[in-house]
Amino acid sequence: MINKTNPGNFFEDFRLGQEIVHATPRTVTEGDVALYTSLYGARFALTSATPFAQTVGLERAPIDSMLVFHIVFGKTVPDISLNAIANLGYAGGRFGAVVYPGDTLSTTSKVIGLRQNKDGKTGVVYVHSVGVNQRNEMVLEYMRWVMVRKRNLDAPAPEPVVPQLPDSVPVTDLAVPYHIQPGQYDLARAGSPYLWEDYEVGEKIDHIDGVTIEEAEHMQATRLYQNTARVHFNLHVEREGRFGRRIVYGGHIISIARSLSFNGLANALSIAAINGGRHTNPSFAGDTIYAWSEILDKMEIPGRNDIGALRVRTVAAKDRPCHDFPYRDAEGNYDPAVVLDFDYTVLMPRRSAA
Amino acid sequence: MINKTNPGNFFEDFRLGQEIVHATPRTVTEGDVALYTSLYGARFALTSATPFAQTVGLERAPIDSMLVFHIVFGKTVPDISLNAIANLGYAGGRFGAVVYPGDTLSTTSKVIGLRQNKDGKTGVVYVHSVGVNQRNEMVLEYMRWVMVRKRNLDAPAPEPVVPQLPDSVPVTDLAVPYHIQPGQYDLARAGSPYLWEDYEVGEKIDHIDGVTIEEAEHMQATRLYQNTARVHFNLHVEREGRFGRRIVYGGHIISIARSLSFNGLANALSIAAINGGRHTNPSFAGDTIYAWSEILDKMEIPGRNDIGALRVRTVAAKDRPCHDFPYRDAEGNYDPAVVLDFDYTVLMPRRSAA
Amino acid sequence: MINKTNPGNFFEDFRLGQEIVHATPRTVTEGDVALYTSLYGARFALTSATPFAQTVGLERAPIDSMLVFHIVFGKTVPDISLNAIANLGYAGGRFGAVVYPGDTLSTTSKVIGLRQNKDGKTGVVYVHSVGVNQRNEMVLEYMRWVMVRKRNLDAPAPEPVVPQLPDSVPVTDLAVPYHIQPGQYDLARAGSPYLWEDYEVGEKIDHIDGVTIEEAEHMQATRLYQNTARVHFNLHVEREGRFGRRIVYGGHIISIARSLSFNGLANALSIAAINGGRHTNPSFAGDTIYAWSEILDKMEIPGRNDIGALRVRTVAAKDRPCHDFPYRDAEGNYDPAVVLDFDYTVLMPRRSAA
Repeated sequence: MINKTNPGNFFEDFRLGQEIVHATPRTVTEGDVALYTSLYGARFALTSATPFAQTVGLERAPIDSMLVFHIVFGKTVPDISLNAIANLGYAGGRFGAVVYPGDTLSTTSKVIGLRQNKDGKTGVVYVHSVGVNQRNEMVLEYMRWVMVRKRNLDAPAPEPVVPQLPDSVPVTDLAVPYHIQPGQYDLARAGSPYLWEDYEVGEKIDHIDGVTIEEAEHMQATRLYQNTARVHFNLHVEREGRFGRRIVYGGHIISIARSLSFNGLANALSIAAINGGRHTNPSFAGDTIYAWSEILDKMEIPGRNDIGALRVRTVAAKDRPCHDFPYRDAEGNYDPAVVLDFDYTVLMPRRSAA
Repeated sequence: MINKTNPGNFFEDFRLGQEIVHATPRTVTEGDVALYTSLYGARFALTSATPFAQTVGLERAPIDSMLVFHIVFGKTVPDISLNAIANLGYAGGRFGAVVYPGDTLSTTSKVIGLRQNKDGKTGVVYVHSVGVNQRNEMVLEYMRWVMVRKRNLDAPAPEPVVPQLPDSVPVTDLAVPYHIQPGQYDLARAGSPYLWEDYEVGEKIDHIDGVTIEEAEHMQATRLYQNTARVHFNLHVEREGRFGRRIVYGGHIISIARSLSFNGLANALSIAAINGGRHTNPSFAGDTIYAWSEILDKMEIPGRNDIGALRVRTVAAKDRPCHDFPYRDAEGNYDPAVVLDFDYTVLMPRRSAA
Repeated sequence: MINKTNPGNFFEDFRLGQEIVHATPRTVTEGDVALYTSLYGARFALTSATPFAQTVGLERAPIDSMLVFHIVFGKTVPDISLNAIANLGYAGGRFGAVVYPGDTLSTTSKVIGLRQNKDGKTGVVYVHSVGVNQRNEMVLEYMRWVMVRKRNLDAPAPEPVVPQLPDSVPVTDLAVPYHIQPGQYDLARAGSPYLWEDYEVGEKIDHIDGVTIEEAEHMQATRLYQNTARVHFNLHVEREGRFGRRIVYGGHIISIARSLSFNGLANALSIAAINGGRHTNPSFAGDTIYAWSEILDKMEIPGRNDIGALRVRTVAAKDRPCHDFPYRDAEGNYDPAVVLDFDYTVLMPRRSAA
C-alpha cells in the first residue's frame, strides 16, 4: 500500500532542468475580485470599474496584478517550498497577458539552479515559474530561490549551478496592455492629478495610513490563493515554533502595501514587473502595516506617449508610521520595523492621456 | 516636488456650491453579493434568488439597498469625512434605479451648507451626494452633515448656510421598481405570512437574535465598500485613542440590524428611503448587536394595490436583548446600550399580491 | 396585533407527513465559490477550474458538493432545528443534478418520523429534506433526525414512528455526472497519481495538515449558508451557556476535513453520497482541526470503466495530529479529540481515464 500523501519535495528531489507541472488550475472570477477588495480595500479605478478600464483600452476591469501573482505563486508551494526554510528572493518577474474574470491560470516551474549549503543539511533551489492562461499565453513569469531542507543527509550534493539573476526587468520587456486616447483618462475618477511626468527619481512618498492584520484575514487570503504553506494556518504547531504563532504570508503584506500606495500613486495602473523583493521580517496578526515608496527610476516606453513606467521601491513597516521613511542603516541593516522591501515597475498614464 | 498624498479636505477647503467628483467608480458583482451574504447572512428572498426576484417584476436578483448605500457612501469618505470628528446625520435618502450585478456606481457630492462652530476649530459641512449607474441614472441620493476640523484656525469663517432638511421622504418620491401580478408572491419562500395590511402604526417588533462582531468582519465589510476612514483599520493609532480600539463603521451596524429584521419584517422587499439616522454610540469588536423595530407610518402608494410602504424605525442595541424595546428616556436621552436609531421606508407586498 | 417573529417549531408543532416549504431560495454564484475557497482553500481541480471540469464531461466548474449541502441544509434550520438540543444524525444523503453558478436552490422537508422522549420534555423529529434547482431537479436529498424541545409540556405525545434509515447509499443510487474519455484525465493538474484502482479497503490515510479556526471564519461560512442557528453567532448569550463561547457549525468542520483530505484523496472528484455523520464533540474558535480517512469500501459503477466509487470514513480531531488515526476505544467510545465521524462516498477516476 503506497503512502498517498504528498510530503513535498526535499532538496535532493530536485534536478537541474526538471520541469514541474503544478496542480490545481484556477478559474479566476468576479468572486475572487470581491474577496480581494474586501481583504485589501484597493481603490485603483482600473481594477474597480469596467467603464474606467475601457477608457484605457481594456475590454473590462482586469484582475489585479498581485492577485494574479498570488494565484500563480500559490500553485508552486506544494512542490517547491513545502519544506523550505526561507524564501530567499524573487527576480525577473514579468506580467504578460491581462487576466480577466473567467480566465483559468496554471503554473509550471523549471529548476534553473541548485546549490547545496555547506552545512550539508539544506540547499538553495532556483526555479523559473511561468503562469499561463487557458490559451497558454504567459500571464506572469518570475524566478525565485528558496532554501530547502534535505531529507536524506547522505544524498550527494549536485553540481552547483547558480543562474544569472537580472537586477531589474528592462522597459523593453514590459507588456503594456493599455492604449489611452488623448484626453480620455479621467483624473478625478482615478483619484489623483499626478501623472508620470509629475514624479521624480529619488522622490519619497509616505502613504500615511496603517492597517492592522487579523488572523482570519491573512488565512482567508492565503487560502484564496490555494497556498498551503503550513506556517500560516496551524496554531497548534506554530505555538511551539520559533515565533509562537502563525506567520502571515509575505504576499499578503505586498498586497496591503500596494493598496496603501494608492495614496500617492493612484495612477499606477498596474504592476508590470517585479524586479526583486525581500520579506525582511515576519508579520503576525495584530501588526499594523504602514508603507512608503521611493521612485527609483522613470522610463519612457518606446513608441508610446500615453503611458510611461516608474520603477518603485515600496517599503512596509509594522507598528511604525513611515513619515521618516525607515529603511536601512549605514551598514545596510534593515530598520527592525521594516517587513518588506519590494522593487517593482508600474505603468502610469502620461500628461497627454488626461 | 509636490506632496502627492491626499490629506483629505478640512473645513476651510469646502465652498458652498462646490461639486466634488469622487474617485474610484465601482462595478458591483455577484462576488460583492456573496461577501455581503457572508457578512450579514440576510435571508430576504428578493436579493437571494433570481427566480424570486422575477416574481416581483425584476430581471434578476438585485443588489441589496444597503450594499448600494455603502458603496455610494464609501466613495465620499476620502473627500468629505477623512478629517471629520463626527458624522452628525442623514436626511432625504432616496433609492432610484435598481442596481444589478454588472452595474458600475460613481458618486458626486455638492456642498449645500457650511457653518463654522463657535470654537473656531471646526465646522459643519452639509453635502448632497448622488450615486449614479453607468447610464447616469440616480441609484441613491442623500444629504449628510459632518463636523470637520479646520487645519488653519485663522481661515475666515464662511457665511453660514444651513440647508432645509426634510423630516422624511414623501411616498410620492419613492421609486417603486416592483410589479407583482395578483397571487404571484410566494409567502412560503419569502419566509413570512405577514404583508403590508398586517402591520399597524405603533407596532413594535423584537427581532430576537443577536450577532457578535469580529474585527476581521467589520474591516472586510468596510474595505469592500472602499471606505477609508482610518478609525476602522488602525489599531496602532486607535490603541492610543479615545476608545483604545478600532471603531466599527456605523453602516456595518445598519446592515446587521436590517439582516436581523428579517425575523418580523421578512416581506420588507427593500429599503426605498432613508429618512434619517443616528449612530448614538460607537460599536466595537466583541459587541453583540440586537435590534427591534417600530412601525412609524403606513402609506399607500398612489395607483398601486400590489405594494405599500412602511416607515420603520429600527433601533440596534449592544449586549442587550430588545424584548423591552430600549430607546430613549423621558428627557430624550438614549438608553446607553442603543447604538443605532435608523428611520427608513420599506416597500412591502400587499394582500392582493399573494 | 399578531407577533410576527418566528420562534421556530417545537416538538409538538410537527406532524407526521407534514411538508415544510423552507424560505429563501438561493441563487448560487461564482461569488459563493470564491468565498468557499477563501474559507477552506480546497485544491480539487474539478471545482477550481472550468477547463479541467470539461475534461471530465461537465460544462464548467461545478459547485462543490459540500457547498450545495450547506446551502440546502441552511434553509431547513429556521423550521426544523431552531429549538433543537442536538443534531442526532444523517442518513441516505444523495447528490443529484450537478449545481453550477447561476442555479437557484430551494429546500422542502417532510416529517417522516416522530418519537417523544421519556422525559416528556423533548422528542426526536425525523425529516426527509430535498433540495432542488430552478428546474425542480433534485440536487441533494437526505434524512436527518434532531432532538427538539417541547414548548408545551402538556401537549400529547404523538404515536411514535421511527423511519427505516439506510446504513449507506447503494452504488446503484449514485448520480454519476462525469464521463471521461480514455487518457483525458490530467493527473498532474489533478495533483495526485493515485486513482480508484490504487486504493484498498481498510487503507488509512493521514491528511497531515492542521488548520486553526477563527470566529470570523466560521461565522462568515455559516452566514454564507444562511444558517441561522443561534449558538454560532451570539457570544452575549453563549458566554453564559454550557461552553462559555460560540459553537462552530458542524458542517464547517466537514468542509475543513474534506479540504484537508486533498492530500491523499486528490482525485476524489466529488462527494456523491453521505451515508452518515456524527459531530462527536463541539468545536470552537482556536481549535486546530486535523483529519484522517479510511477506505471503507470500493465499488465498481455498473457499466462504467472511467469512474469508480469509494466509501470513505473521514475522522476529524482537534488539537491532535492524526498519524495514529484516533477514533474509538474498545468500548466504542470516541477519542475525546475526535470531533467528526463522517461516512460518505466519493467518485474517483479509474486507470483507463488517465
